[in-house]
Amino acid sequence: MPGRDAVDVLATLLPAGRVITDPAIIEGYRYDRARDARVGRPRAVVRPAGTSEVQTVVRWAGRHGVPVIPRGAGTGLSGGAGAVDGCVMLTLEHMRAVAVDPDTRVAVAQPGALNVEIKRAAAEHGLWYPPDPSSFEMSSIGGNVATNAGGLCCVKYGVTGDYVLGLEVVLADGTAVKLGGPRIKDTAGLSLMKLFVGSEGCLGVITEVTVRLLPAPAPASTLVAAFPDMIRAADAVLAITAGLRPSVLELMDRTSVNAVEDKLGMGLDREAGALLLVCSDAPGPASAAEIEAVAQICTRHGATEIHATDDPAEGEALAVARRTVLPALEQRGDLLLEDVGVPLPALSALVEGVAEIAEEYGLTIALVAHAGDGNTHPMIVYDAGAPDSAARAALAFDAVMDLALSLDGTITGEHGVGRLKRGWLPAYLGPEVLALNRRIKTALDPQGLLNPGAVFEN
Amino acid sequence: MPGRDAVDVLATLLPAGRVITDPAIIEGYRYDRARDARVGRPRAVVRPAGTSEVQTVVRWAGRHGVPVIPRGAGTGLSGGAGAVDGCVMLTLEHMRAVAVDPDTRVAVAQPGALNVEIKRAAAEHGLWYPPDPSSFEMSSIGGNVATNAGGLCCVKYGVTGDYVLGLEVVLADGTAVKLGGPRIKDTAGLSLMKLFVGSEGCLGVITEVTVRLLPAPAPASTLVAAFPDMIRAADAVLAITAGLRPSVLELMDRTSVNAVEDKLGMGLDREAGALLLVCSDAPGPASAAEIEAVAQICTRHGATEIHATDDPAEGEALAVARRTVLPALEQRGDLLLEDVGVPLPALSALVEGVAEIAEEYGLTIALVAHAGDGNTHPMIVYDAGAPDSAARAALAFDAVMDLALSLDGTITGEHGVGRLKRGWLPAYLGPEVLALNRRIKTALDPQGLLNPGAVFEN
Ligand SMILES: Cc1cc2nc3c(=O)[nH]c(=O)nc-3n(C[C@H](O)[C@H](O)[C@H](O)COP(=O)(O)OP(=O)(O)OC[C@H]3O[C@@H](n4cnc5c(N)ncnc54)[C@H](O)[C@@H]3O)c2cc1C
Ligand SMILES: Cc1cc2nc3c(=O)[nH]c(=O)nc-3n(C[C@H](O)[C@H](O)[C@H](O)COP(=O)(O)OP(=O)(O)OC[C@H]3O[C@@H](n4cnc5c(N)ncnc54)[C@H](O)[C@@H]3O)c2cc1C
Repeated sequence: MPGRDAVDVLATLLPAGRVITDPAIIEGYRYDRARDARVGRPRAVVRPAGTSEVQTVVRWAGRHGVPVIPRGAGTGLSGGAGAVDGCVMLTLEHMRAVAVDPDTRVAVAQPGALNVEIKRAAAEHGLWYPPDPSSFEMSSIGGNVATNAGGLCCVKYGVTGDYVLGLEVVLADGTAVKLGGPRIKDTAGLSLMKLFVGSEGCLGVITEVTVRLLPAPAPASTLVAAFPDMIRAADAVLAITAGLRPSVLELMDRTSVNAVEDKLGMGLDREAGALLLVCSDAPGPASAAEIEAVAQICTRHGATEIHATDDPAEGEALAVARRTVLPALEQRGDLLLEDVGVPLPALSALVEGVAEIAEEYGLTIALVAHAGDGNTHPMIVYDAGAPDSAARAALAFDAVMDLALSLDGTITGEHGVGRLKRGWLPAYLGPEVLALNRRIKTALDPQGLLNPGAVFEN
Repeated sequence: MPGRDAVDVLATLLPAGRVITDPAIIEGYRYDRARDARVGRPRAVVRPAGTSEVQTVVRWAGRHGVPVIPRGAGTGLSGGAGAVDGCVMLTLEHMRAVAVDPDTRVAVAQPGALNVEIKRAAAEHGLWYPPDPSSFEMSSIGGNVATNAGGLCCVKYGVTGDYVLGLEVVLADGTAVKLGGPRIKDTAGLSLMKLFVGSEGCLGVITEVTVRLLPAPAPASTLVAAFPDMIRAADAVLAITAGLRPSVLELMDRTSVNAVEDKLGMGLDREAGALLLVCSDAPGPASAAEIEAVAQICTRHGATEIHATDDPAEGEALAVARRTVLPALEQRGDLLLEDVGVPLPALSALVEGVAEIAEEYGLTIALVAHAGDGNTHPMIVYDAGAPDSAARAALAFDAVMDLALSLDGTITGEHGVGRLKRGWLPAYLGPEVLALNRRIKTALDPQGLLNPGAVFEN
C-alpha cells in the first residue's frame, strides 16, 4: 500500500478506537514511573481488547518493522515501559478480566488486571494471592510477571514468578502460545514459562496469566523497632532471618521516615536512625512468640524503642507508611531510584557504603529495603533543573552500582533492568552470560522489535 | 589424527582414570531406574573431577560429533539418563563437594552431591534444604535440578527449582557460565537459570548448584487416615487443601500399602481402600490444631480409622513407608511408572479412571500420589517376559496418558519426559509450543549432541 502510513494500515486491521494518534493522549504514555527524560515519542498508542488483537498488532509490526513496547500500568521504575521514537505503545490496560476458580485455587487474569483486583477476587473465596509490590493497588499483573515483581511478603512467600502456573504469550511472529496451566507441578518440556517471567516485554507479549492462590493466612502481628543507626538495624535483620520466618521484614532510614511523616503525620519516630517493620503471620499463639523473639533480637542489637501490636488496622497503617516512602520522597525532588540487592551478610556493608557515597557527592540518598531479601532501594534525591546536582546524582548512581557489584550483589532485585540499568548489565553478567542472553533474545525476537533498548543496549 | 579413535583422543585430554571403556563397568551405566530395555550402549563412561574437565569432554564431543548424556545418580524414572548407542555417559558422581554458608543461608554443591548430603550439611548449621524426592538418599542434586524434582514436602514448600539461586552450566560449545548466585532476589537479565531447571540434560551440563536454605521447621505432627476407597480419600484431599497448608499430603492405594507391608511389616491397615498420610509442621500448638482440622475433614469424608501422633520417630516411620512403595512394588514384577498430574479437582476422576483402565486391561495398577499437588504415580505391574502382559501394559500406559490429557493434566509432574514419555510430548504441548521448545533447544545445542532423544524425538 504505497504512500499509506503504517499506522493507518493498523487502524484498518482493528476495531474502531483501538489505535490512538492524538498527541495529547500519546504524551501520557511516553514515560513510566522512572520519569526518564530521555524517552522517545510513540507513533501511536494501541489498546487491544483481546489476544487476537494483540496478535494483529504484533504481526503488523513485524511486517512494517515497527518497535512494539508492551505496557501494563506504567508504574515501572526502570524505564522498561518508556517510549522509543516511532514505536507503538501496546497498552494492555483494557484487557482486565479476572476469574477465580476456587476448587483449583487459581486465578486466570488478563494482563491489564491490577494486582489488587486479583487479590480482591481471590479474597471473595477466602483465598489469597500473596505477591504484594508496594504498587499493588496500581500495577498490572502483566507488568508484575514481566518484571518478576517482589514486595513486602516475599521474604516468606516468594516473588511473582513463584505463583505463576500458566501464561499465554504472543510471540514476535504473532503466534499465541499457552505455557503451563492450572497444574501445581508440571515438568513436561523445557521451562519456557519461567523464561517469560521477568522478560520485561523483550520476548513476547503476555496476554493471560494463571496464578496459584493460597488459603488466607492467619492475621499478622506487627512490630516496629527504632534503632540508632542503619548498621545496627541491618545486623538485626541478619540475626532475625537466621532462625525465624517473618512475613514482612522491611527497613526504612531516617530520611524515608521523615518524608512519610511529612505526608501522613502518623507519629513515627522522626529521630530514629532506622525503623524496622516486622510482621509474623505464624498461626495462633506462634505469631506472638515469633514477634517476641524478634523483639529480643532487636533489643540485643541496640533498638531504642519497640512497639508491637496484633491490631490488624494498626499493622496495615504501618505497612501503608512503608509503601508511602516512594511517593513521599517524590515530593522532595527528583529521584534516581536504585534496586540493588546483596547476599544477606553484606547488607550492612551496603547500607554503610551508600551513606559514604551520599556524603562524598553531597547528596541525600534515602534508603528503604525489603531487608529480609537483601534487596535495597537507595533513592538519590536531586534537582534535575540544576546541572551540577544532576551530574553528581548520576555519579552517585554509578557509585552505588559499583558498590553493589563489589559486594557480589545484583544491579536489580525486582524492578528489572529496563532502560535505566541496561548500561550496567554487561558488567554484571560478564560477556559469556550476556552472549547467552542475546542468543535467547535473538531466537525469540529475530527482528528485535519487542521492546528494543530495554534490558539490552541496541 | 587419522585412524585414532575419538575415545583415545579424549583419554589423552583428561587425567588418567577418567575415561572408562571396560564393558563390564559400562554395562552398569546403560540404564537409569526406568530400566528401559531399549537403551543403547555407550562408547565410554567419563567421570570428570571438575568443571574444566566437563568442558574438555563437551568440547571434544562437539569436535567429534559424539552424543553426551549427563548423568547424576541414575535414579531417574523416565529414561532420561539411559544410554544411546555410541554416546559418552558423562557421570558427575565424583563431583560431590558441598559447602554451607550459614550466614548467607545457602549451600553450594557440586552436581553429584546427593540430596541427603546437602540436607545433612545444612542441618549441621540448624538449617534445612526442603526438597525431598522419595529418592533423596540416593539421587544427586544435579539430577534433582535437571528434572526439577518434587517430593513429599513440596505441597507446602515447593519443588527443587524454588530453591535454586544459582547454577554453573557447561554449554554445548564448552563455555562455562554462572547464572544467578547467592542473592535471594535478582531480575538482571533474562531468567536463564530457570531455563536450565528441568532441562533434563538437553541444554547444558550442570556443574555447580547454589541452593537457598531455610531455618529448620518445627517438628511435625503426623496423621494417617484409612478410607474405604480412593475416591473418598481424593475428595478429602481437595477439602484439606482448600483451607489448610499441611507439610505432607500423600495418598497410597491398597496395592501400595500391601506391598510396603510385605516388605516392612509395620502394621499398616491392609484392608483399607486408601491411606492418607498428612503432616503439619505449623509451629507450636498450631500443628495439633491443624492435624485436628484434618482429622475432622477425613471423618466427614468417610475415613474408617484415624491415627495421629506427634512422635517424630513414628512420623518418620510412616514417611519411610510411603517412600518404600516403589522399591516394594519392584519386587512384585516389572513396572511401567506414570507421573501424571491434574488440576486438583480432577484428582478423584483420575483415580477412578485409572482403576477402570486396570480393569479393562486385566492388570494391577498401583497408585501413590503427592496428592496435595495433584501429582500421581500410577504404577503398572506386568511381566516383561510375557508378550501379552507387556502389550497390555503398554496399552494401559497410553490409556493413562490419554486420561490425564482429557482431564487437562500433564504427562509428567516431576520425573521429566526423558525417553519414556517423549512420544507424548507433542500431543501435550501442541505444535506451536513444541516448535518453541525446539527453537530454544537449537539455539543452545545446535549440533544436538546433549542428551539426544531425551525430551524430544530425534
Ligand atoms: C510507589 C511504587 C512502589 C513500587 N513498589 C514495588 C515493589 O515493592 N516491588 C516491585 O517489584 N516493584 C515495585 N514498583 C515497580 C512497579 O510497580 C513494578 O515493576 C510493576 O511490576 C510494574 O507493573 P506495571 O503494570 O506498571 O508495568 P509497566 O511499568 O507498564 O511495565 C513494566 C515492564 O513490563 C513490561 N510489560 C508490562 N506488561 C506486559 C505484558 N503484558 N507483556 C509483556 N511485557 C509487559 C513492560 O514492557 C516493561 O518492560 C513500585 C512502583 C511504584 C510507583
Ligand atoms: C525410589 C525412588 C523414588 C523416587 N521418588 C521421586 C520423587 O518423590 N520425586 C521426584 O521428582 N523424583 C523421584 N524419583 C526419580 C529420581 O530420583 C529423580 O528424577 C531424581 O531427580 C534423579 O536424580 P539422579 O541424580 O538420579 O539423576 P539421573 O537419573 O542420573 O538423571 C536424570 C536426568 O537429569 C539429567 N542430569 C543428571 N545430572 C545432570 C547434570 N549434572 N547436568 C545436566 N543434566 C543432568 C540426566 O541427563 C537425566 O535426563 C524417585 C526415584 C526412585 C528410584
